[in-house]
Formats: sequence, C-alpha cells, structure tokens
Amino acid sequence: MRVGLGQFNAVVGDLAGNAQRMREIYARAIEADVDLLAFPELAVCGYPPEDLVHKRHFLQDCRLTIDKLAVDCPDRTIIIGFAEGERLNSHNSAAVLQGGKVSRIYRKALLPNYGVFDERRYFQAGAEPLIIEVEGLNVAVTICFDIWNIDWLRKFLEKTGRIQMILNISASPFHTGKLLKREETINKCAKEFGCAVAYCNLVGGQDELIFDGRSMFADSTGRVIAKARAFDEDLMIADVVPESGGAVRIQPRQPAAVQPTDLLDEIYQALVLGTKDYARKNGFRKVLLGLSGGIDSSLVAAIAVAALGAENVVGITMPSEFNSPETISDAEQLAKNLGIEFHTIPIGPILGPFHRSLQTVEGWDSEGLAYENLQARIRGCILMSLSNQFGSLVLTTGNKSETAVGYATLYGDTAGGFAVIKDVPKTTVYKLAERINKTAGRHIIPRDVITRPPSAELRPDQKDSDSLPDYDLLDRIIKGYVEEDRSIAQLVEQGLPEDLVEKVVLMVDRNEYKRRLSPPGIRITPKAFGKDRRLPITNRYSHSRDTTLNC
Amino acid sequence: MRVGLGQFNAVVGDLAGNAQRMREIYARAIEADVDLLAFPELAVCGYPPEDLVHKRHFLQDCRLTIDKLAVDCPDRTIIIGFAEGERLNSHNSAAVLQGGKVSRIYRKALLPNYGVFDERRYFQAGAEPLIIEVEGLNVAVTICFDIWNIDWLRKFLEKTGRIQMILNISASPFHTGKLLKREETINKCAKEFGCAVAYCNLVGGQDELIFDGRSMFADSTGRVIAKARAFDEDLMIADVVPESGGAVRIQPRQPAAVQPTDLLDEIYQALVLGTKDYARKNGFRKVLLGLSGGIDSSLVAAIAVAALGAENVVGITMPSEFNSPETISDAEQLAKNLGIEFHTIPIGPILGPFHRSLQTVEGWDSEGLAYENLQARIRGCILMSLSNQFGSLVLTTGNKSETAVGYATLYGDTAGGFAVIKDVPKTTVYKLAERINKTAGRHIIPRDVITRPPSAELRPDQKDSDSLPDYDLLDRIIKGYVEEDRSIAQLVEQGLPEDLVEKVVLMVDRNEYKRRLSPPGIRITPKAFGKDRRLPITNRYSHSRDTTLNC
Repeated sequence: MRVGLGQFNAVVGDLAGNAQRMREIYARAIEADVDLLAFPELAVCGYPPEDLVHKRHFLQDCRLTIDKLAVDCPDRTIIIGFAEGERLNSHNSAAVLQGGKVSRIYRKALLPNYGVFDERRYFQAGAEPLIIEVEGLNVAVTICFDIWNIDWLRKFLEKTGRIQMILNISASPFHTGKLLKREETINKCAKEFGCAVAYCNLVGGQDELIFDGRSMFADSTGRVIAKARAFDEDLMIADVVPESGGAVRIQPRQPAAVQPTDLLDEIYQALVLGTKDYARKNGFRKVLLGLSGGIDSSLVAAIAVAALGAENVVGITMPSEFNSPETISDAEQLAKNLGIEFHTIPIGPILGPFHRSLQTVEGWDSEGLAYENLQARIRGCILMSLSNQFGSLVLTTGNKSETAVGYATLYGDTAGGFAVIKDVPKTTVYKLAERINKTAGRHIIPRDVITRPPSAELRPDQKDSDSLPDYDLLDRIIKGYVEEDRSIAQLVEQGLPEDLVEKVVLMVDRNEYKRRLSPPGIRITPKAFGKDRRLPITNRYSHSRDTTLNC
Repeated sequence: MRVGLGQFNAVVGDLAGNAQRMREIYARAIEADVDLLAFPELAVCGYPPEDLVHKRHFLQDCRLTIDKLAVDCPDRTIIIGFAEGERLNSHNSAAVLQGGKVSRIYRKALLPNYGVFDERRYFQAGAEPLIIEVEGLNVAVTICFDIWNIDWLRKFLEKTGRIQMILNISASPFHTGKLLKREETINKCAKEFGCAVAYCNLVGGQDELIFDGRSMFADSTGRVIAKARAFDEDLMIADVVPESGGAVRIQPRQPAAVQPTDLLDEIYQALVLGTKDYARKNGFRKVLLGLSGGIDSSLVAAIAVAALGAENVVGITMPSEFNSPETISDAEQLAKNLGIEFHTIPIGPILGPFHRSLQTVEGWDSEGLAYENLQARIRGCILMSLSNQFGSLVLTTGNKSETAVGYATLYGDTAGGFAVIKDVPKTTVYKLAERINKTAGRHIIPRDVITRPPSAELRPDQKDSDSLPDYDLLDRIIKGYVEEDRSIAQLVEQGLPEDLVEKVVLMVDRNEYKRRLSPPGIRITPKAFGKDRRLPITNRYSHSRDTTLNC
C-alpha cells in the first residue's frame, strides 16, 4: 500500500483556497501512484476554526466543499479532515473519499479541552472506530488526540480485528519539545497494535499557533522511518509493506527531508513561519517596526527579513535625548546589514509640546514614570500612524521576560499588530541573535547590540537591571511560575531566592491587564501568554496568598 | 425550615475576603434563626476563577478556607460553593457545613462549556445527587446548570425519594432577558418535583461579566414568591413550609426588594455595577475619560459618576480645529452638570509637530485616514499619560455598534482600561441618555448632545452617517449577525437590505483584530465581543463565502 501524507498550509476559513491546494496535491499523489492519501485534521476549514463552527452557514459550506472534493478526487482513497454536522451538533470528522463520493466518515472520539484546545465547546465526541481496507490492508482512521491515550485507544479498537496501520490526521501545535512527545506517542501506538503508524500533521501559522508539520511514518516496531519537512509544506510518500509474521515495514519513496538542527533552530524557524503567515494570511505585504538599537528589535527585524524579504521590512528609529549615540548608530547599522528601508524620526520635537500640554494639568511630573512612558507612547503613535498610512503591519518587539513582568508601556511599545517574540525569553533572544550571526558568518546583528547591557533608554543611564533581576534568574522563575504553574514555595525549594521569586510573581500577577491589551504573538513554549493561559484580570489571589491561613 | 440565601459580591481569588464576608452574613443569618443558609456557586474563590484552578496551591487554599469556615460557622446547616480537589482532578462543589465540619460534599454534574463558560476545561463532572435533611425536610443540593436540563435532572434525582426543596447555588451571569429564562427554569423544576426551589445567585462585576443576584424562592406550584435585590448584595430569608397533600409553601420573612423597573433600568444598573466593581476590585479609586461632547462619552461619564461618585471622575476634553464650539461647550456643560473635575487640553500644539515629524517620511498624507486617526491617538496618549501619572483608570467610550464595525481608532479612542458601553448598541445609548435625564428631572446630558447628528469630528463636517448606515438599521444587522449568528441570506430574508447587510458583515469580520486589542467591557447582551464570541483573527471565511461553490 502506497501512502501519501499531504502536509499543507491551510488557512482558517478559506474553504475554497484549501480545497484548491488539496486538489493540486491530489494530482501529484495520483501521479506518484499513491493508494491512500491523507490530509490533516480539519483540512477543509483550517485549525482551529473557533466560533466559526457556531455559524449556521459555515458547516453547510464545509459539507459542500468536501462533497465537491469527493467529485474532484475520484481515484484511490483520500482522507480529509472537515467540520461535520449542524450548528450545536457537529463533529471533528475525517471523510473517506472513494469513487467520487464520501464513502465513510470517522468522528473524533477524544476531544481535547485543555491548554490551547477548546474542542468540547464545538464538537460532540464520536464513539465508533473506523477501519478501512486499502490494498488488502486494514487501516484504522484516527484524529489527533485519539492516539494520545493508549489505554483508551486499546479498548476503542479492541473489537476491530487485526490492523496493519493506524492513520492519524492531526493539527498538533508546535512548542519546543513537542516533537519528542509525538514520537513517543506514535512509538507506543505502533508497539501496542503491532502495526505501522502514518501521522499527517498540519503546517502553518494561525494567529498565535504554529503547526510544524513533520508528518511521520513509523513501522510496527515503533521506529520513525520517515519524517516530512518541518515548518513547510510537504507531500511525503512511503510504501507500507506487511511482512510474514505480521510485522509491517515502511519503505520511503523519497530522500529524507532536512530537519532542524536543534531546538534553537526549531524556534527560529517557528518564528519565521509565524511572522510570514500572520502577515500573508491577513493580507499584509509589508511590516514596520521600531528599531531601538537593542537586542529585541534587532532580532525581530532579522526574523521579519527572513520571513518576508528585506524589501518588505521598514525600520524606524525614534531617538530621544536619552538614547546614546551608540544605540542610534547600531539601529542604523542593523538596517544596513539587513538591507531594509530605514527612517529616523526624532521624538524630541513631539515630546516637548506634548509635555507642555500635559503640564497644564496640575500634578503632572516632568521626570517620573508617566514621562518615561510618554516617550514609548509617542513612538507607538508614530508606528501606528505609518501603519495606517502605508498599510503595513506593525511588529512589536517585547520578549517573554518583559511580557511576564509587565516591563513595557501599554499602548507604547506594546502598540502594534503582532508580537513576534512575545513567547521568547530574553535569554533565548540572545541565543537566537548569536545563532543568526553565526549562520550568516558575519555580524548582521551588531556585536555591541549583543554585548551592551540592556536598557529601555527612557531616562538618563537607565538599565534593565535597575528594575529587574538578572535575566538568567528571571527566566528560570518565569518558566517555573508561568509554564509549570509552580507555587512560590516550590520555586524556593528549587533553590531560587525567595525575595526575588515573590517580587517576580507579584509582577506577573499584576500585569495581566497589560498582556490582555497587547497583540497576539507566536507560541513556542508549552505555555505562552495566550489562549493557553487564561487568568482573570480582576484577581486578588496572589495578593491574598499569605493571608489565606488567617481567613 | 427557615432558609437564608446569602447573595454576596465575591471577589475572584480573594479567599480571605470572601470568607470574611460570609462569616458576617452567617452571623446575621443565625441572628434571624435560619436553619439552612446557602452561598453562591464557587463563593470561596469567586466566579469564574479560570486558570487559577490549574495552580497547585489554589485548590489547597480553597480547601483550607472551607475547612476554616466550617469551624467558624458551626451552627445550623451552611452550604458554600468551592473549588474542590487537586490540580487536573477538581470539582465545582458545594460543601455542607454542619457541626464545625464539612459533613457532605456535592459535585456539580452538568458542566457548561459554551458561551462564556469553560467548565470542562477546569472540572470533572460529579455523578451523585445529594439529599440533605434539614428540620425534617429533604433538600436536593444542586449547582447552577444542573437544573437547566429538566429531562436530565428527572433521571438524576429519580432514586432520591420525595424531596421538599431543591436548593440551587448559582453564578449566573446577566444579560438582558436572562431573568425570564431563570424564572422559567425554576418554574419547571418546582412543577416537575412538586417542591419548593431556593435559588441563590452571585452578585457583582467580574471583568466583563455581571452577576445580577435576584436570588429567588419559588413554591411547589412554581410561582416565584420572593426575589432578592438586583445588582446588590442581599440576605433573603423565607420559611419553607410543607403543607398537607405534599405542597410546599414559601413564607417570606422580609418585605419584597425593589426590582428594576424595566429592561433599560436593568442595563443601566448593570453598567453602574460593572464599572464600580472593575475599578474597586482592581484597586482604582478614580477614573478618567475623554469628553468629546458626544453622546457616548457623556453617557459613560454619567455612569461613572453613578458608580464612583462625582469626586472620583475626571473628564478631559481635547479639542482640535475640527471640533465645533458647540461640542466643546457641551463637554464642559456636561462636566458641570455632573460636578466632575474637568480639564481642557487642546491637541493642536501636539498635532502640528507630530504631523511635521511624520511628513519627513515620503508619502505621509496631510489629510487622509491616518491623519484623522493620529488625532485620536494623541488623545489616547494624553489619557494614558494622565492615568500613569495619577493612577486613574481610563474608561473608553466606544459603543457596541462602533465596536462591531471597527469605527474606532486602534490605540486611539480604544486606548484605556475598561470599555463601559462596549456591549451597548448606539440605539440603546440614546435611550439610556434620555432615561438618565428623565430620572434626574433635568438635562444632565445636554439636550444638544442627544439631538445632534453623531460625528467623530476628525475632519471638517464629518458625520457618522458618511461611513455607517443609519444606527437603527445597523443595530438590527449587528444583532442578527453577531448575537444570533444569522447568515447574510437569513438577514436579507428578514427584510434587511442586502447591500447594507453585506457591507456591515464584512466590516464586522475584518475588524476582529481591533476588538482583540481593545479593553474588556461589560456584557449586557446574550453575545458580547468577549469570551462568548471567539473568532480567529486570521480568518478568510466571510471573504470566501461567495466563492465556496466554486471551490
């Protein structure tokens, strides 16, 4: 049995476009003499469609699309994920297209409702396994989460008889380390059922989520024999060959795809794809961003160039009297290195009159935090104005460490459309910058930008370290508190200093409102500040922690 | 059996504060010789706690709090909602406190996972009914959604024997018309089981949600005999009296609480409570807002004064050359009528230099949309700067009609912390303004503000009607498309003009990003632009609608 996995970049809601892409892949697969061709989970509408599933016409349109695809793809067996049913009674389903018709339908049985997933909001669970026969082999059709609980799956499939392959169509979002979990899951499945596993994953960026592709074939020993491209489309084809004794072998029909070299490379590729797809899928050709001469904006600029091309990235530096000549020239040097359009708009001529107008209100302070933040807000205003004028998307440049503790000006440096490195801790920002230079073989990001102590440059001689702990320490606390939901006591047990932990936790808790009013960004960790972390703004929990026992 | 319903305003996460409030109410209830005292769903931690439930210590702290409450409230029978269990294995539960201990626990069996609810993300469903005996009567303890499916409830309680009362503790969010649905539900329950129903609801604002209280007692014919205060705390007490023949009578122990006069009054009270609680619970004493002399900001100012007192509201007018003398003087008159602090900060002196700086970028246009939006952004900047300086919360003033179609400047008039009338359609804005004047017996909101055709005043002679359909029509389309999820075809069938429907739907779809980057606001309709409407930003569905059949 020759199997093709059509790992493609679906756009949410673009039923016609997704169908067209699948027809193109189908034609190539037929050319390659594939017997079974699979497309990802909800391939017809993209993933996640969210409340589109509640719209009356949306499910009807999905059905029309899958029926049309059946007619257009009449040869062999094609499996396509689609949203099935009626408003308030719908399923996350896989259609089996054979002979010009939808011959069978499988309905996802395990619906994830944690982390970034809300599938019980949208779908009813299926209860029936589906086994299809292709070229004399029995194939169990499953969808994503169905194979992640092996005890459940054993029972679910116990009456289906001997199967030679589990096909799993997925929309499995990326975070660092996720691939290993997928491989373990596939390994367990193959061993449990003594069968091959074909795993077809989605690829592409969708708001904060990145789907990384890397569809896989495993043989009946659980070994992954073939893996499709990462962060890109791919049609991966292999022969699934039953052997005497019941084992099932995988015979790839293509050379192995080049894979990311390490976790840092994965993150870089995820950020590039996420930026490219957010811009492209929302109709933006160009992006613009403020270049401060600091490490964050330098990294974002480099990612934007990799994603969209130097000709589509515009850098604006907006110096004040507090910016050192070094950072200003570094911003310019970076733009030159990247070959991007660059403008300098000093904010002094705006800050002066702004400040004088605010001074008419008694109590306005010429030096404090509000005055510092005003500078950031003027810059936000400039970027949004240029975005408005030229139709470019504004990229914001805050990293995860800053985002966590609220070290940012609301409607200032958080103003924009997409927050590229919002889930990248500062320590990883440095690693990525160094990696970019190393890969390029030259200092694209000027050396000083990497070595200079970070500063917001909103007052004389300001340093990040005036307000924040050392970033190594800060990032460890954030990882424990945010990503792993550890308590203060547990973090202190891990050896982190108690006073710092308390300070950071309080900052994280207090700045929920700022994060909620900031743009979405690319998720690269197991828990980002996005749909996987839903905390109330109005929330006194952390404040009351110490007094609970006195309640 | 004397029953007390302790309808109180819990703060999410404030375990100690909520416990203290319940102890105070307990003391009053004991004084009134109550046999059974109930508090709302999740009263210990407030509702909804969202991902706090995933924090390791949170559930432990909830347990410590309920155990302490049991010790502190040893007399009679007390029912308190709390989050029970361990991380990833928790329940939305009701503790029965008797004799200084938690004597029994009921676990909510029906977990809503639609609209604003995500309970399957957090809780496991209970499966066992709980009947407690109080003063010889059998009381079934239920939680919120448990009583909303009467067929399910019949089966759930079929083996429990005869009951005299269903106690339901709830955290049922308000929207206009919700009360009627609650009364129908309670009526059905009472009739089905031939018993009394005691319904204890939460009260208070929590981010976008308003809990309106109005706890109720119904007798065994289903008639609502007593209803607690709306939008305020109340301890409502009644005797539940079994009669010969099995009927159960309700004997209120207090005079009837005054209720809202109509749906408009409900909305007004919801907006006042929502504003008050968002400010108070987040530690803001003062609010500030821009006063344009238009109807939206005038209404928000009046609501803020009702919520927080005139001494805590600051109005800023920020005129440009495009503002008419009439609107400027109306803003001032409004501030005078409300008795609030008022400042005038003309934006001309800032707009000029800003504009000149932007002109250094080739292609910047002196007249277009970007220039108009720059004015709104300067105003946003001024308000955020004053907020920063004085620690006041900025209220934004956009209504639902504008929010729907994106008739607002991102990071301009959308910049702020809380969007008071974000879910109030423009047509209702007018009605509320008129009601405020009528109730006051004078023109608090100047007459001209109500009669003048609405304008953003960002260019000469601008009118809302240049860009938007008549608000009557617009609001009907928005209600159908947004709140009722109707398709274009269905709206046209209802008699709405096709070209306008298409135009409005496109505007609604295209402006998802703007809404996602704007502050939360008070939900008053069955579907607001908040957690009850979750659409992807990256979404080509509406665009592809017409081409689906050509897919």
